[in-house]
Amino acid sequence: MIGKKVKALLIDSETPLVKPAEEVAVVGVKNRLNHALLILTTDKYALVPVLDSDSKMRGLISMPTIMHAIMDIEDVHFEKLGDIEVKEVMDTDYPYVYDDFELEDVLGMLVNHAFITVVDKENVFKGIITRSEILKGTNRIAHEFEKIYDVKEKTINEEAISKETIKQ
Amino acid sequence: MIGKKVKALLIDSETPLVKPAEEVAVVGVKNRLNHALLILTTDKYALVPVLDSDSKMRGLISMPTIMHAIMDIEDVHFEKLGDIEVKEVMDTDYPYVYDDFELEDVLGMLVNHAFITVVDKENVFKGIITRSEILKGTNRIAHEFEKIYDVKEKTINEEAISKETIKQ
Repeated sequence: MIGKKVKALLIDSETPLVKPAEEVAVVGVKNRLNHALLILTTDKYALVPVLDSDSKMRGLISMPTIMHAIMDIEDVHFEKLGDIEVKEVMDTDYPYVYDDFELEDVLGMLVNHAFITVVDKENVFKGIITRSEILKGTNRIAHEFEKIYDVKEKTINEEAISKETIKQ
Repeated sequence: MIGKKVKALLIDSETPLVKPAEEVAVVGVKNRLNHALLILTTDKYALVPVLDSDSKMRGLISMPTIMHAIMDIEDVHFEKLGDIEVKEVMDTDYPYVYDDFELEDVLGMLVNHAFITVVDKENVFKGIITRSEILKGTNRIAHEFEKIYDVKEKTINEEAISKETIKQ
């Protein structure tokens, strides 16, 4: 459970937490790696979602994944970029949540992932939640929380609780 | 100013906030782009610091930067990767702080940058501060702050202050 007052500052009521699908660069499962490389070169993200023709989420593709796909122990075979389809090499073990997600889950996942994919129950891609958006909330909490609220240590078993929880 | 109690939970007293230089993949200013591409392919970061022979910080290099350097309007010239030095194309407008940094400054910079470089006063590279480390702190605050502390709205001018500060 996330504390209610912390949560209220972590999320900006005027800006949606999810960057909507139409604002996110994506590639198709049947695109070739040379096209994916072009998208990744022009896009600001280091990896992008891979969708099928029904806009359903299928995987993620990154530059390192593309490079690994065209490298062998001796050389990088750039001529293969036009032969390999994205679906052959994309990462299908990606982090995602449904569009009725709990903020708590997303917060935990973002420690290890640059962004979290949001899909509906039919797996249609709805957008992404980025670390940047949560870090804006962290800044609000850092600068404003103790200005807005009086914060006092709890008196009962306070020392025991704080030691236990901080260590987790 | 960051609230003291928020700050205490944001930073983990047992884990250093700065990932030390010896644990960060870097490339040299005189390395060729093919070497940088190899480092970026094996490293988990999408961009890496560029150092000179005195371990001083000179720039950042990313895969999109490398791709732009070998592309023209018609084609990608992979054969150029072995000819161009990193210092010719690296991004020299990178975010950094000195090793006596204020957390407040770092928090703000991380909204727009994947990591912040830490240097000493002689510009020697000391390490990086990542979004991941701050997001661990955000998780601690979200889950623990209101368990440890009693949080009450301030009574004097409370509504006026909270409206003003939240909007900033």
